[in-house]
Amino acid sequence: MKSTEKLITKILQQKHICVGLDTDFNKIPKSIQYEKNPIFEFNKRIIEQTYEFSAAYKINLAFYEKLGSLGFEILSQTMEIIPKDIFVIGDAKRGDIGNTAQMYAESLFEHFNFDASTINPLMGIDSAEPFLNYSDKLHFVLTLTSNPSANDFQKIKLENGKYLYEEIISKAIKWSENVGFVFGATNFELLKKTIPQFENRFVLLPGVGTQGGSLKDVVAEFYSRENRNFVINVSRDIIYAGNDNNFDLAAKERIIFYNDAVNKIIDEING
Amino acid sequence: MKSTEKLITKILQQKHICVGLDTDFNKIPKSIQYEKNPIFEFNKRIIEQTYEFSAAYKINLAFYEKLGSLGFEILSQTMEIIPKDIFVIGDAKRGDIGNTAQMYAESLFEHFNFDASTINPLMGIDSAEPFLNYSDKLHFVLTLTSNPSANDFQKIKLENGKYLYEEIISKAIKWSENVGFVFGATNFELLKKTIPQFENRFVLLPGVGTQGGSLKDVVAEFYSRENRNFVINVSRDIIYAGNDNNFDLAAKERIIFYNDAVNKIIDEING
Repeated sequence: MKSTEKLITKILQQKHICVGLDTDFNKIPKSIQYEKNPIFEFNKRIIEQTYEFSAAYKINLAFYEKLGSLGFEILSQTMEIIPKDIFVIGDAKRGDIGNTAQMYAESLFEHFNFDASTINPLMGIDSAEPFLNYSDKLHFVLTLTSNPSANDFQKIKLENGKYLYEEIISKAIKWSENVGFVFGATNFELLKKTIPQFENRFVLLPGVGTQGGSLKDVVAEFYSRENRNFVINVSRDIIYAGNDNNFDLAAKERIIFYNDAVNKIIDEING
Repeated sequence: MKSTEKLITKILQQKHICVGLDTDFNKIPKSIQYEKNPIFEFNKRIIEQTYEFSAAYKINLAFYEKLGSLGFEILSQTMEIIPKDIFVIGDAKRGDIGNTAQMYAESLFEHFNFDASTINPLMGIDSAEPFLNYSDKLHFVLTLTSNPSANDFQKIKLENGKYLYEEIISKAIKWSENVGFVFGATNFELLKKTIPQFENRFVLLPGVGTQGGSLKDVVAEFYSRENRNFVINVSRDIIYAGNDNNFDLAAKERIIFYNDAVNKIIDEING
């Protein structure tokens, strides 16, 4: 199945929650820390209990790179057990000159076999093209992120009156049909203004949950504009929902809670 | 020895060439492709022949990530054989929210034990701080890079009249004493204007060699301002100088050629 179709299928089922597998050994329950391959075992149990309810998974490469070669081995093992009909985002936020970006793209798509990437656009189209050439994949370009210091540069005013992140959207949307965007759900007022600029491209929204963005606001805003092309990433609030050996069931309960909330909002809008 | 001291020691010896170990299996000589661990063997022989003449090494993580877990194993093996008095830059251009940036910083400094990082500043100070907290290390922040599409955003004009890359310099210089900068040697006219803005911080200059920047112009410009705090990265033009089994000797010859050229320019300036 084509990568994008996997995501569309889930969205048509009103699934919009992407589970972030940002697994940190120091945060997983004690009981599983003693397993032979604890991070993989943790991921496996989380995936088994959440895959029916997830729109997608997002794997943040940093949490695996921290462990070097072993971490990348665990990442490969995790990719193998994710059901093939689920869309998986390789969240690495890479950006480099062309020949280097080519290597990063090969890492994500040839080696790990992700369905999508996140791209840091600072270095411009050269740094994005090797990713975009994987035309059956989706590529989420960073715009305004969910962290406080997004103000430092992403929200800086340009000579043409726009914010830098708006300029990023208007340029990157022309790069390719398979460009999507990352926008922090913590910036709700700006998100409202920005949704039309996305022109129905897929939007990945971190910042709901631990970081404080409002699920209700985000879902209501997209659906009231008849736009379904969004996924909300939740990492810590789902995967660390429990802290004993039933952590997987706690995660399941938590994503069902999120899905129920999403459905309630949609039902309200559809009257 | 403190990381920065390693670099200063080499610079005092008028060594300014950083060798980029961007090793690509498809570009190494056929004779070594048949070795059991070809990329490592290639790196080993390049290091053995060039370390006496190098100011530093720069390892671009993309070329190793491409091979997943195996690539990171080769990267670790390579780090182990680099003499401990040589400064090694982990060129990964990471940038992410705080808890993720923390993982990337641990990867570079706890796992791989680099002396320096390169940082993509788009997401602002939050994304840099976990790196900067490694205060005995150097952190090169991207400003204007050597690729053509650096014009897309890095060279965009802001409301305050500055280019974005200038705003990056003026903000990042206040982040920490251990901030340095990456500036593409291909942009020589702008480099001349920008050198005073670096306030004698260390500058890493890619773009000389295959990418076309002029060694002479760069060295002359820094030295005529009595500023020695720069390293010029050369990757392909040194490591692929030869294409037969004497590739290591060809690389040695090539870096000696660069060093001689640097010394000649310095001698001319010093009269």
